[in-house]
Amino acid sequence: MAIQARNPNEDDEDGNDATLGPLDEAYDGGVDAAMLTAIDHVAIVVEDLGEAIAQHRDSFGVLVGDREDLHDEGAEAAFLDVGGSTIMLISPITDDSPYADFLAEGGPGLHHIGYRVDDIAAALASLSKSGRELIDEEPVPGPRDSQVALVHPDSAFGVLVQLVER
Amino acid sequence: MAIQARNPNEDDEDGNDATLGPLDEAYDGGVDAAMLTAIDHVAIVVEDLGEAIAQHRDSFGVLVGDREDLHDEGAEAAFLDVGGSTIMLISPITDDSPYADFLAEGGPGLHHIGYRVDDIAAALASLSKSGRELIDEEPVPGPRDSQVALVHPDSAFGVLVQLVER
Repeated sequence: MAIQARNPNEDDEDGNDATLGPLDEAYDGGVDAAMLTAIDHVAIVVEDLGEAIAQHRDSFGVLVGDREDLHDEGAEAAFLDVGGSTIMLISPITDDSPYADFLAEGGPGLHHIGYRVDDIAAALASLSKSGRELIDEEPVPGPRDSQVALVHPDSAFGVLVQLVER
Repeated sequence: MAIQARNPNEDDEDGNDATLGPLDEAYDGGVDAAMLTAIDHVAIVVEDLGEAIAQHRDSFGVLVGDREDLHDEGAEAAFLDVGGSTIMLISPITDDSPYADFLAEGGPGLHHIGYRVDDIAAALASLSKSGRELIDEEPVPGPRDSQVALVHPDSAFGVLVQLVER
């Protein structure tokens, strides 16, 4: 199976004991190829988008690639290029934005991780089949001409996961 | 300046209005090249490392590249390959591990984001100069033969940021 050929445990050059644990067991299920192909983005909710952009530029040397209004969520977003991936800064522009609630509850911080997938419909079907709780049963239009869907944190070790197909 | 040449606002092919905001202002400071060159990893604290590895494999099709004991932190870690980046799963193995405290306080979830830098000493000096609060003033040895240093969440929009030099 393709997934077994990708198992680096078989010739671990570092000499680390990577052979412990479930990977030693016969592999008899699950997806048959890597579903998650890249970290598409990390999303951070901030109070002031302009200030966050400026601070990321001046302190961390990362620049805006795109900006986009998230009309349905009462928010605006900026996409900062980091290597082949992206820091997505999100800030509410309406009082009833879910991101306004997020800030009110815990202040700025990490909101979700976006993983890129080749086929989001197939990924959702596979996750549903394996018992994962989905927030979005079907893909919805996302920023930057993407299709996206959220996986519930209870099914992803407390992490809000967004699948992203481009 | 090199950083200006990388500013995509100057020829935004997508037609998005990316020219609003502070990037329109004259750029007169900050770092002179991208400090953060990649998302090195996202770190997730989990209760049971073996179960988390198995579920990531079976549901998300991502496999362990390396495992490593984090002796100083009373924890063990597994590094799962996602494209050119990594999901770092961390689980405490001692009761006094800081990750045991993390789980007790809020359950499993995102712990930090690791950004790769070319020169961690220079990055720390630059961040310190720009007034960022550092948890690690000097680089410390990290997993997988890296040098790492933490930036305080108060200086990174609520996100615990780890700089990683390989």
